[in-house]
Amino acid sequence: MAEAISKTPEPPYYAVIFTSLRTEGDRGYAAMAKAMSRLASEQPGWLGEESARDGALGITVAYFRDLDSIAAWKAKAEHLAAQRLGRERWYAAYQVRIARVERDYGFTAP
Amino acid sequence: MAEAISKTPEPPYYAVIFTSLRTEGDRGYAAMAKAMSRLASEQPGWLGEESARDGALGITVAYFRDLDSIAAWKAKAEHLAAQRLGRERWYAAYQVRIARVERDYGFTAP
Repeated sequence: MAEAISKTPEPPYYAVIFTSLRTEGDRGYAAMAKAMSRLASEQPGWLGEESARDGALGITVAYFRDLDSIAAWKAKAEHLAAQRLGRERWYAAYQVRIARVERDYGFTAP
Repeated sequence: MAEAISKTPEPPYYAVIFTSLRTEGDRGYAAMAKAMSRLASEQPGWLGEESARDGALGITVAYFRDLDSIAAWKAKAEHLAAQRLGRERWYAAYQVRIARVERDYGFTAP
């Protein structure tokens, strides 16, 4: 799991915004989440990942170079999820949004 | 602060992804964050907001109809921030990414 702000290149690049509401209990969730993150980070075109959860609501944003990288990662991720318990066990609801980052700016304390 | 997944319309629409690392202590942060959220939600073109924080790392994603709505909100937000203490007091680092949502899909438990 990411614990820092991703060092992404100059836009354009892509973001997969995954917002979820967890069910209660782990039931294999932590292991699956770790496997999913590792799978993403091994994908050519992967640029970084940021993740935070406040109780039930979690947001993970994964950054990729292009849509082809996302499609390749998604196919593998779905295969991995199908091998496991299925998302319906871990999530009360989720939304995936695929977005093209057009502009970015930031600040780092000196 | 949002505690649910935003009900956004059919793409395309825009996402402002704000990832931040907090400094320690509140020093007016909670009041500012609340004011910023309220300001966003009053902006014409605002579609919703999702927010989560895990210790120092936080992610807020605000959704807007178009870039003009984001520009109008940003001008007001910067004015509000300038009236207060300045972001440098609350954040060790942050990154803002403005992205065009091109596709989305989701799941809600029956």
